[in-house]
Amino acid sequence: MNRSDCQALDAEDPLARLREQFALPAGKIYLDGNSLGVLPKATPARVAEVVLREWGEHLIESWNTAHWIDLPQRVGNKLAILVGAGPDELVVADSTSVNLFKVLSAALAIARSDSPQRRAIVSERDNFPTDLYIAESMARDRGCDLMLVDAPEQIEPRLARGDVAVLMLTQVNYRTGRLHDMAALTRAAHASGTLAIWDLAHSAGALPVHLKRDDADFAIGCGYKYLNGGPGAPAFVWVHPRHVDRFVQPLSGWMGHAAPFAFDPGYAPAGGISRFLCGTPPVIQMAALECGVDTVLAAEPLGGIAALRTKSLALTDCFMRLVAERCGDRGLTLVTPRDADRRGSQVSYARAEGGYAIVQALIARGVVGDFRAPDILRFGFTPLYLRFVDVWDAVEHLRQVLDKEEWQQERFNRKAAVT
Amino acid sequence: MNRSDCQALDAEDPLARLREQFALPAGKIYLDGNSLGVLPKATPARVAEVVLREWGEHLIESWNTAHWIDLPQRVGNKLAILVGAGPDELVVADSTSVNLFKVLSAALAIARSDSPQRRAIVSERDNFPTDLYIAESMARDRGCDLMLVDAPEQIEPRLARGDVAVLMLTQVNYRTGRLHDMAALTRAAHASGTLAIWDLAHSAGALPVHLKRDDADFAIGCGYKYLNGGPGAPAFVWVHPRHVDRFVQPLSGWMGHAAPFAFDPGYAPAGGISRFLCGTPPVIQMAALECGVDTVLAAEPLGGIAALRTKSLALTDCFMRLVAERCGDRGLTLVTPRDADRRGSQVSYARAEGGYAIVQALIARGVVGDFRAPDILRFGFTPLYLRFVDVWDAVEHLRQVLDKEEWQQERFNRKAAVT
Repeated sequence: MNRSDCQALDAEDPLARLREQFALPAGKIYLDGNSLGVLPKATPARVAEVVLREWGEHLIESWNTAHWIDLPQRVGNKLAILVGAGPDELVVADSTSVNLFKVLSAALAIARSDSPQRRAIVSERDNFPTDLYIAESMARDRGCDLMLVDAPEQIEPRLARGDVAVLMLTQVNYRTGRLHDMAALTRAAHASGTLAIWDLAHSAGALPVHLKRDDADFAIGCGYKYLNGGPGAPAFVWVHPRHVDRFVQPLSGWMGHAAPFAFDPGYAPAGGISRFLCGTPPVIQMAALECGVDTVLAAEPLGGIAALRTKSLALTDCFMRLVAERCGDRGLTLVTPRDADRRGSQVSYARAEGGYAIVQALIARGVVGDFRAPDILRFGFTPLYLRFVDVWDAVEHLRQVLDKEEWQQERFNRKAAVT
Repeated sequence: MNRSDCQALDAEDPLARLREQFALPAGKIYLDGNSLGVLPKATPARVAEVVLREWGEHLIESWNTAHWIDLPQRVGNKLAILVGAGPDELVVADSTSVNLFKVLSAALAIARSDSPQRRAIVSERDNFPTDLYIAESMARDRGCDLMLVDAPEQIEPRLARGDVAVLMLTQVNYRTGRLHDMAALTRAAHASGTLAIWDLAHSAGALPVHLKRDDADFAIGCGYKYLNGGPGAPAFVWVHPRHVDRFVQPLSGWMGHAAPFAFDPGYAPAGGISRFLCGTPPVIQMAALECGVDTVLAAEPLGGIAALRTKSLALTDCFMRLVAERCGDRGLTLVTPRDADRRGSQVSYARAEGGYAIVQALIARGVVGDFRAPDILRFGFTPLYLRFVDVWDAVEHLRQVLDKEEWQQERFNRKAAVT
């Protein structure tokens, strides 16, 4: 396989024109859309409209006339299409961490109302840390135990002990890119009387998610990764309809009230998913998120998220193959599963030495991936805007950085405040 | 007093040029800055810079190069100046409701660690409802009781019973504009072993707040009212240094971790106020909030918030006097205290009939106030951008609406979705 083969793949890519939706920075191959998605071309004008016209000219009346009041549900309903949720089941709100707090409260209360003796929250030691921090806090507060397994194979045996209230997993691991089988693990959870919470941070917008089909109980996710919602975009929260009216989540702010503008002193939860709202939403960021979600929905006439998945797997296959062929003897150990059913839209390698500096050297060449301590080089592939020729060029840069030992230069070994 | 007198007051107003900071909508007299502040002229360009350059061009590296990572503290330190807090004591984060949840958790834990028998959270029945909703939820969860008093005079006797863990008050009442004496009530709370939480939603940016001087324990507040941060701007949270390291608040997300980029599976809280952060902050909205806070800080060389307060009181005095003179026999009952020490920056009237429709008729004439059920007409006065001539003109419109019984028209009596 050579660069021309990659160009040929791009020429026949049925999704190629989706790339035109994005304001891609010149001279960069951006393999970090799993951390912060790129800017859609539609976003600056939409943000300017919200700022200048809706806020600047119409001020408070925009809650009505510009329908700000409906944004959490409107953007939520668009997003629902991408994760296999039904209409009016999902809202955009707060951050992923705050939303996890809400659903974990609800899941624990519901699971334990049936089986008060269940005290365990089970997750993985290498789950995204903020999820573990929230669960640690919740477990302490509720007199529960956060039990962390070290490998996916340990999950089902742990569930079988019968003391687990909630299984809390991230569908795609942020470091390794390993993809869980949502259907099978949810089935195993339910078989042992456990409720399942899924964090879709690294899967929503990147691959088909079937919350209803796979019978998940709760889900949360992030707006600024594969959904291209911009830095600090609000997150989302979904609750299966069978649970949504069974519990009043503790962050019971006015936006989740049944009648938010009645200004009653007592709380009465809205019916349905709206009760998972809390305070006033960040209107400007929600408008930007809507533009991001629209870039993914633009794939619908072309086969939708399933077609994006096909391209994503082809891109990551191509990357793994080229790295093996061209950088195979340079100390990179693939940590992402090769099996297409078991990986997300990223490829990660461990390297005993120099991982951070190699990533910095690649960034200096315009190939933006990231490094996750202690030893992971992480490359995300967003099929909406990446080409096969980008894959070729990225691997070529990686080969040169390794061959020339460019990463040993002192300037690539200085740690930034945020890595 | 006539219109020329008002024009003369504007001509000698030392703060007059602060108005030039704002993109005021043509043909409107905006008396709703206590609900949503107006757009600063600097904001659109700053937002566009964040969207186009920081996000669009520099993407993930802007966490370092554009210092996104420091925004909660940087904007917090500017805001601290306006509320009498010290450096590194205040951060911008989440919504007011979410921040109240954090500080209420902390206050209850700290108060009850010394006196476990204290079970009461005391607030006012006419406090802003979302504060009561959060407190209601927290009380239920912690086995406490939310006790609501019906009048400010009942607060001190209630505290004296000795069973109150936390006193939770909003400094300026959202309906009536009544201003509490923060120093005296905090002193009374402390004298009875109670901690005091202050919601500054309707005071921060509008009048001098002295959190440290008045010895408050916790404070939260809103970014989109007198701080002009834009719709859904993030809120803020302050904790007195004597308490800040005593408790780990339950929304323990990754941004509040001592080493957020170490990705440790266990939570270790940051020292100081940063532990009150939770998830990834809304970067675009924070940048807009910074522009808003800057519009208030621009008053510093002109006497700062004390000078703004002097003008605010003059504006509201003028309004109350003109309404009394010119609309005095039209069924409006002043519900805002006349005493300058006991009111914020708004003026509210009750009217037995037609309050909603009168507000709608005024809006149709370009005078934007708002209505709060069941019977309150509310007019906010932001001294940064309002003139005495605006006060005259607003009262003249109100007089005409009342004299002509314009508000009886059917079109002013149709309720909007959001009022």
